[in-house]
Amino acid sequence: MPTLRFTKGHGTGNDFVLFADPDGQVELTDAQVAAICDRHFGVGADGILRAVRTEAVAGAPEDAAVWFMDYRNADGSIAEMCGNGIRVFTAFLLAEGLAELADGDSLAIATRSGVHEVSRSADGFEAELGAWRLDGTQPLVRARELPVARPGLGVDVGNPHVVVALASVEELERADLSYIPILEPEPEHGANVEFVVPAEPLVTGGVGRIRMRVHERGSGETLSCGTGAAAAAIAIRDYAGGAPDRWIVDVPGGSVGVRVEGDQVLLSGPAELVFTGELTV
Amino acid sequence: MPTLRFTKGHGTGNDFVLFADPDGQVELTDAQVAAICDRHFGVGADGILRAVRTEAVAGAPEDAAVWFMDYRNADGSIAEMCGNGIRVFTAFLLAEGLAELADGDSLAIATRSGVHEVSRSADGFEAELGAWRLDGTQPLVRARELPVARPGLGVDVGNPHVVVALASVEELERADLSYIPILEPEPEHGANVEFVVPAEPLVTGGVGRIRMRVHERGSGETLSCGTGAAAAAIAIRDYAGGAPDRWIVDVPGGSVGVRVEGDQVLLSGPAELVFTGELTV
Repeated sequence: MPTLRFTKGHGTGNDFVLFADPDGQVELTDAQVAAICDRHFGVGADGILRAVRTEAVAGAPEDAAVWFMDYRNADGSIAEMCGNGIRVFTAFLLAEGLAELADGDSLAIATRSGVHEVSRSADGFEAELGAWRLDGTQPLVRARELPVARPGLGVDVGNPHVVVALASVEELERADLSYIPILEPEPEHGANVEFVVPAEPLVTGGVGRIRMRVHERGSGETLSCGTGAAAAAIAIRDYAGGAPDRWIVDVPGGSVGVRVEGDQVLLSGPAELVFTGELTV
Repeated sequence: MPTLRFTKGHGTGNDFVLFADPDGQVELTDAQVAAICDRHFGVGADGILRAVRTEAVAGAPEDAAVWFMDYRNADGSIAEMCGNGIRVFTAFLLAEGLAELADGDSLAIATRSGVHEVSRSADGFEAELGAWRLDGTQPLVRARELPVARPGLGVDVGNPHVVVALASVEELERADLSYIPILEPEPEHGANVEFVVPAEPLVTGGVGRIRMRVHERGSGETLSCGTGAAAAAIAIRDYAGGAPDRWIVDVPGGSVGVRVEGDQVLLSGPAELVFTGELTV
């Protein structure tokens, strides 16, 4: 019964149990991860972020990054990348003295979807998400308590999203996302669905602003989804004619920033470490 | 920004942040309690249990009990007593070396509803809940996805309950308790509503067994409600003709035991301490 020393943290309410395992010696089973992430019987989290040295991970690009972010979902399944999680992971590495990050520098973090650079930003940290593209689809989106079906826009940000613009904040608040939104046609591998209302005015000082709620595949409605915020900004930017390149996205758990650089997109936002703990696993 | 050392624990999924404050020096505001109990931004819990010496609490019966259980709900409001919480509180006092409890002995815990004795039991700890009585009411109970309204039985266990027996496990599982059950007539101060299905056979070896789901006033459906389990057993015992006196109640978060001693009722069950932590408040 080894003792696990951990830190609990969140980025806009997307929350994680983090722990350092430099030599890659702590392999948690799916059942252990699920028990730790249970919000009543365990610590409670959306997922677990384990910090392992890349040199201890088979196949990881150890010349490009010192640390590998081993991300597991709350059910124990393996995940590739998390736009909110990588900021909290960075804050954890810095707090533990496992890495340094000066203003203007960047820190490379290895993940299952490659190496992502993280730097400091006015609102916390900014992380490269990677390439984005409109996937060419425009499925009809229906949700409980929304009066009509509306056309969505398919956006790929490493994972699939469908973004749908609503008419008003009232409509955004009325949507009942405890039910899975219905897409016609249904994408082959499903999609996260973002419901978005543009701010008025949409752009202030060269920065666009939108409000968003999100239904994540397999998780239901969440307080925040990093790639979803990026997809939402990209879709509204497309509707607006391809500008501006900087966006603020207000999600139920706070606000994040999205920056488009050509075919690349970056996500910024806060990263809070809430408490440290010890658990017998 | 003082550091709070705490323990997280639960009894059948009813979960608490516990900390020792022997001299009564840590007065958390409602906002601080709510922040700590938030499941994404804080530690996450149904409530906070603070252990204070009765001699440091104005009005507490310091000759009858050494420790006072200061119970706050997740929104910061003050609560009197919690049948699951008092077991976890006892486990915490023992783990911290703040109290001792030999087999066959009992430990007096002061609460806002008086002093309750706790002893060890086969399934963990058993605590006196106090006096029970049928309150004479039989409101009709309606719940979403239940085909018909059914008569409930009003039971007072220090707080008000309405217990309704359902026809089958299928019906119990079908009830949608994300909606508040409707009572006709509605009790003046509302009530927790317990939906119960008797086991088949109801009594084995002198012990009755029922399965229960509960909708708590102000909280919605919960994994477990200690007084609700007691009320449910008392109601089905009444339907069965006033016997037996020992019951096992299966709740979504586990199983608890209920024991009737004349006009008094006792609740037993597990108490698990999950992890320890440090938090800046």
